[in-house]
Amino acid sequence: MNFKPHKYLEPDFTKLDINITAQYVSAKSDGIAPDNFHAMSIYPEYFNIEGEWILPNQSRMDCVAVLRSEKFIDIVEFRNIKKNDKVIIGRTEDGSEGIYLHADCFIDEKSKKDTFGFRQSRTRETAFSKDYDKLYEVLKHDKENGYIVWVLGPAVVFDHDSRNAFVNMIEKGYVDGILAGNALATHDMEGDLFKTALGQDIYTQDYMPNGHYNHLDLINRVRKAGSIEEYCKNIETGIVNACVSHNVPYVFAGSIRDDGPLPGVFANCYKAQDAMRDQLRKATCVVCLATQLHTIASGNMTPSYTIKDGVTRPVYIYYVDITEFAANKLKDRGSLSVTTIITNVQDFLSQVDKNI
Amino acid sequence: MNFKPHKYLEPDFTKLDINITAQYVSAKSDGIAPDNFHAMSIYPEYFNIEGEWILPNQSRMDCVAVLRSEKFIDIVEFRNIKKNDKVIIGRTEDGSEGIYLHADCFIDEKSKKDTFGFRQSRTRETAFSKDYDKLYEVLKHDKENGYIVWVLGPAVVFDHDSRNAFVNMIEKGYVDGILAGNALATHDMEGDLFKTALGQDIYTQDYMPNGHYNHLDLINRVRKAGSIEEYCKNIETGIVNACVSHNVPYVFAGSIRDDGPLPGVFANCYKAQDAMRDQLRKATCVVCLATQLHTIASGNMTPSYTIKDGVTRPVYIYYVDITEFAANKLKDRGSLSVTTIITNVQDFLSQVDKNI
Amino acid sequence: MNFKPHKYLEPDFTKLDINITAQYVSAKSDGIAPDNFHAMSIYPEYFNIEGEWILPNQSRMDCVAVLRSEKFIDIVEFRNIKKNDKVIIGRTEDGSEGIYLHADCFIDEKSKKDTFGFRQSRTRETAFSKDYDKLYEVLKHDKENGYIVWVLGPAVVFDHDSRNAFVNMIEKGYVDGILAGNALATHDMEGDLFKTALGQDIYTQDYMPNGHYNHLDLINRVRKAGSIEEYCKNIETGIVNACVSHNVPYVFAGSIRDDGPLPGVFANCYKAQDAMRDQLRKATCVVCLATQLHTIASGNMTPSYTIKDGVTRPVYIYYVDITEFAANKLKDRGSLSVTTIITNVQDFLSQVDKNI
Amino acid sequence: MNFKPHKYLEPDFTKLDINITAQYVSAKSDGIAPDNFHAMSIYPEYFNIEGEWILPNQSRMDCVAVLRSEKFIDIVEFRNIKKNDKVIIGRTEDGSEGIYLHADCFIDEKSKKDTFGFRQSRTRETAFSKDYDKLYEVLKHDKENGYIVWVLGPAVVFDHDSRNAFVNMIEKGYVDGILAGNALATHDMEGDLFKTALGQDIYTQDYMPNGHYNHLDLINRVRKAGSIEEYCKNIETGIVNACVSHNVPYVFAGSIRDDGPLPGVFANCYKAQDAMRDQLRKATCVVCLATQLHTIASGNMTPSYTIKDGVTRPVYIYYVDITEFAANKLKDRGSLSVTTIITNVQDFLSQVDKNI
Repeated sequence: MNFKPHKYLEPDFTKLDINITAQYVSAKSDGIAPDNFHAMSIYPEYFNIEGEWILPNQSRMDCVAVLRSEKFIDIVEFRNIKKNDKVIIGRTEDGSEGIYLHADCFIDEKSKKDTFGFRQSRTRETAFSKDYDKLYEVLKHDKENGYIVWVLGPAVVFDHDSRNAFVNMIEKGYVDGILAGNALATHDMEGDLFKTALGQDIYTQDYMPNGHYNHLDLINRVRKAGSIEEYCKNIETGIVNACVSHNVPYVFAGSIRDDGPLPGVFANCYKAQDAMRDQLRKATCVVCLATQLHTIASGNMTPSYTIKDGVTRPVYIYYVDITEFAANKLKDRGSLSVTTIITNVQDFLSQVDKNI
Repeated sequence: MNFKPHKYLEPDFTKLDINITAQYVSAKSDGIAPDNFHAMSIYPEYFNIEGEWILPNQSRMDCVAVLRSEKFIDIVEFRNIKKNDKVIIGRTEDGSEGIYLHADCFIDEKSKKDTFGFRQSRTRETAFSKDYDKLYEVLKHDKENGYIVWVLGPAVVFDHDSRNAFVNMIEKGYVDGILAGNALATHDMEGDLFKTALGQDIYTQDYMPNGHYNHLDLINRVRKAGSIEEYCKNIETGIVNACVSHNVPYVFAGSIRDDGPLPGVFANCYKAQDAMRDQLRKATCVVCLATQLHTIASGNMTPSYTIKDGVTRPVYIYYVDITEFAANKLKDRGSLSVTTIITNVQDFLSQVDKNI
Repeated sequence: MNFKPHKYLEPDFTKLDINITAQYVSAKSDGIAPDNFHAMSIYPEYFNIEGEWILPNQSRMDCVAVLRSEKFIDIVEFRNIKKNDKVIIGRTEDGSEGIYLHADCFIDEKSKKDTFGFRQSRTRETAFSKDYDKLYEVLKHDKENGYIVWVLGPAVVFDHDSRNAFVNMIEKGYVDGILAGNALATHDMEGDLFKTALGQDIYTQDYMPNGHYNHLDLINRVRKAGSIEEYCKNIETGIVNACVSHNVPYVFAGSIRDDGPLPGVFANCYKAQDAMRDQLRKATCVVCLATQLHTIASGNMTPSYTIKDGVTRPVYIYYVDITEFAANKLKDRGSLSVTTIITNVQDFLSQVDKNI
Repeated sequence: MNFKPHKYLEPDFTKLDINITAQYVSAKSDGIAPDNFHAMSIYPEYFNIEGEWILPNQSRMDCVAVLRSEKFIDIVEFRNIKKNDKVIIGRTEDGSEGIYLHADCFIDEKSKKDTFGFRQSRTRETAFSKDYDKLYEVLKHDKENGYIVWVLGPAVVFDHDSRNAFVNMIEKGYVDGILAGNALATHDMEGDLFKTALGQDIYTQDYMPNGHYNHLDLINRVRKAGSIEEYCKNIETGIVNACVSHNVPYVFAGSIRDDGPLPGVFANCYKAQDAMRDQLRKATCVVCLATQLHTIASGNMTPSYTIKDGVTRPVYIYYVDITEFAANKLKDRGSLSVTTIITNVQDFLSQVDKNI
């Protein structure tokens, strides 16, 4: 395997004829930023602190930068700002206020052409062969040298083959963390208990008599067991069970649509967000499948770069969905570096599993 | 106006040659139902309690029935079951276990034909003229004699005309409650502050310089004001402001996608669900616009009937979305009585406002 | 391989307490049917001719039945009716006018359950694993014992892998005929000449300089060669070339969107229709990929049954498209027996090729 | 009304330091262009003929330029090239081969901002209020000072209100020509005869018994009448009838999907194309509704400019469709100047009719 993540081009600050230290204002109350606060993008942003340009070791779009010490800049959600936090201010990105945004940091000659291509819309008619081939390379590389987070919509477990394909990938070591909702976990375990999802057989498509009880029965059983982990001691199939067996961490975020919920599902959506970000901080590759809510949430929390063992490299983000609208929406919300593939996730997973 | 809600046909239990009292089992722990629990549908369901058939005065799909007294059956979510609750058991619906589901309770000769029509798929090519005309009648009737709840996706405030149309409807008295998320409220108030949504002018489509700060600035200002109500004292336009001025209750449910959030947004999604259900318990008409998450959540909580001043009548549910998939999904999740309209909600609101 | 096409259940006319001969009226002019003409469905329909029930050996929805002799009933398009044709009249299907429609002729115990399932909507979230497995069986069986017609949208040749997959299937013998448009042929041969489709590389997605000339240059070259066959003598890749090499017949129907067109493309759309029907008359399996126009056209011309070596068997129809709307539309236009798969045809073809 | 079409900015050839006459090569055979032919874009293109820059008075994308005389350059489809035609060659657009493409000819300061905005994707969530307001202005202006061509998909006549709205617009003078297919005409006249489209009532949605015969009966009647015009002498409602009454020309292009067809429908799709182009040559405004086939065909034939009474002005093109994919596809096929509106055409027509 020859694949290497794109090399990071350090900015050459000697060419930047500016040396102005970034300004901050202390927050007057918890949860409120000073006027003119600076908000982060998905790109690497350097802050000039007393003449030295500091790159925060983690970032998140639409958050503020808080100066903890001369070397440490923390990236903080509005709700997590504390009184007296030193919030960096300024809304330019060219260094003139001590803030420098470094957008084209992974662009080489080859990818410049790609950038041109990206200006065209990506649709169901885009040729995805090469995107698949590159994804296989990224997954193989990051299995050994990175951290692969999967964001899963419930459709993944609605089909026999795709559910099995994902279990295979867990077993082969391609899954370092899972972000999903109550429905994914519920219907995956319903598939174990009854071979159904929402009462319909995930292979034969037959409807089980009284099958609309199936997910409720499953939820009630897991609640009785006390925890997902406890319940999984007595089952053998499915994605949730494979996560438990292989110590793959998962975050199941609650939503207003939930029945139950299963024990372990986050009721507080901002605590869920924090738990998701804990996974995404480590991520070198994020693959999102057929869920607009969790994908945009994850996209918002994922910067275009990460620092792994002192080396800055890209985070590769993929979004697989059957509609152009959903895919474009992630870009329209700021996640410009995503690679979208327009297809059914069932086929996507079957193919990926066979090729890695 | 001649419109009257469909008349309720009481079941004739004298024709039912069964008189078996419904059985219950006491819950052994909080949040866990006994085996063989009965789960509710969207339809009226009668329980035979010592020979008398009792209709719960409220219902909710996928919840359990708890016998509080001989006359009072409460419909309870799994997470709200308490130890020792008398949970009714049985999974038949024909009276043979003391449970009788009364599905065709609003069907008359005319609507029988409609029912046949409904078996065909509804698509962008369905003729919606009559559905609009009926909706106008329902809204006019329920403005005086009912409770109209609107479920709003953010697209409603992304356009100048549709945002204004909805404000008009609040002022004319057609809005009794609003269910939405942090984004709807944020971008509506961003529209007041900057005339933009996510930085783009909601009329001219121009991009405001540094406009990606707009929603963050708005959120920060409302957080500084301490509450939506306090902030609205100093603004004049928009849906949130009109709600505050006209005492229209709203529920803004948080989600993992949120920036901020605004003060007053529910962080706990199950408490948000409870607050939504409090609105939906009163609803005689529910109109859902361009939000899959909030619509399916609301659909799950809305039965096909309500009892208003002692009279049982239908709850009219509409779902307006631009994709057939979203509309069908609500039906596939059990909300069979919904009327779907496949269009852009901008045009929908402009038209409805002009015709009522 | 154990797969056998569903067995045909002959109608038992002895149980039908009717013996009325079908009536006809002679057409007064070319192209015009008599009043009360009978129009065909997709199902087998028997006509009582002097006491004997005759099944036409071919059929087509929305056409009329013309009595040629006591044993031969021809199914004719309106535009092909000739003066004095004996057009059968009557609009009942229960035998009372000598016309008997035999809808459930392939239903066995197992498929009765399937029929129930089919009443639910099929969407991107339907479990397609078993449909794939059955399709593999049908293709393997009909490769030896049937006639497999493929209906192709241009997206098939927009991607490197799917274009190659289809060429493989031609070479393996799974393709007996192709129905498509000028665009499919043009961009397939553009892929041979320049490795592009509409100027974009079908593997790398790079845009070739002045690539918008590519399809025009290709068309001009084929026109200069005089025919597709002549042009293919000097090329080596692609679907059109594989058809020519392997003597697979194709019909390329012209449309108002065409540049060129290529030589051999039908300018007259009704002559194209006749040529398509000639292929579809022989078909035992029809697989339609990502083209609404050609799929609905083909669906309209394909009955649910065919008679092969004296045996009546089903025609298996598949429609693969990325939108539910397109798939449903085929059903809404009368092709009730189709199996729809909602996915990107690129992945569909890659998968099918690997599994047969 | 203050609306004026964007003013044309003549290119300043004095600033272009080039004076090279365009080269041509005579075609050696009918229908075949010489190598290195120049293909037209949607924009104004000037050809240097012996030192003078000539703008063809009509254009069409993907066609060749044929020099008829020193002052007259004809724009010709490949299939219409004749032997000895002087086909201009060269594939640069900066004047260096005597060909100058003038893309930004209608751009003023204001619209430069618009251009920036246009680079973002247009979706269901785009604010369309201003696009509607501008469309009303264009229609009012061009009713008196232009030529408005409508391209109609069958969905327009599937709904009672939208069908009536379009008839109103014909009567008010907003329709100068119609381009559509056999289905639009058939179902419109079916709506007159039976109040149905494909057997379903266009207002009540009820299914008429044996309604699948309705369109066939209508077709048969019109064929019997001999022509659409003759048939319309005895009917009173609908779009086709209004066209006949008000002498609005129509082109009904045949397709492989057609039943019938109606008399007057073009069987030869390239003759249909020629007839469509005859309408589009005159067009100052083109509004396309819910038909991908006819819209892309029309878009391909419509340049971004027209010369009306010696004045060069834009052709305003609108495409209204419920999917982003269809709208984007028109742009991906080269029609960059189109304004897309993502909505249901039923609502679009009802709104437009009420506002003009």
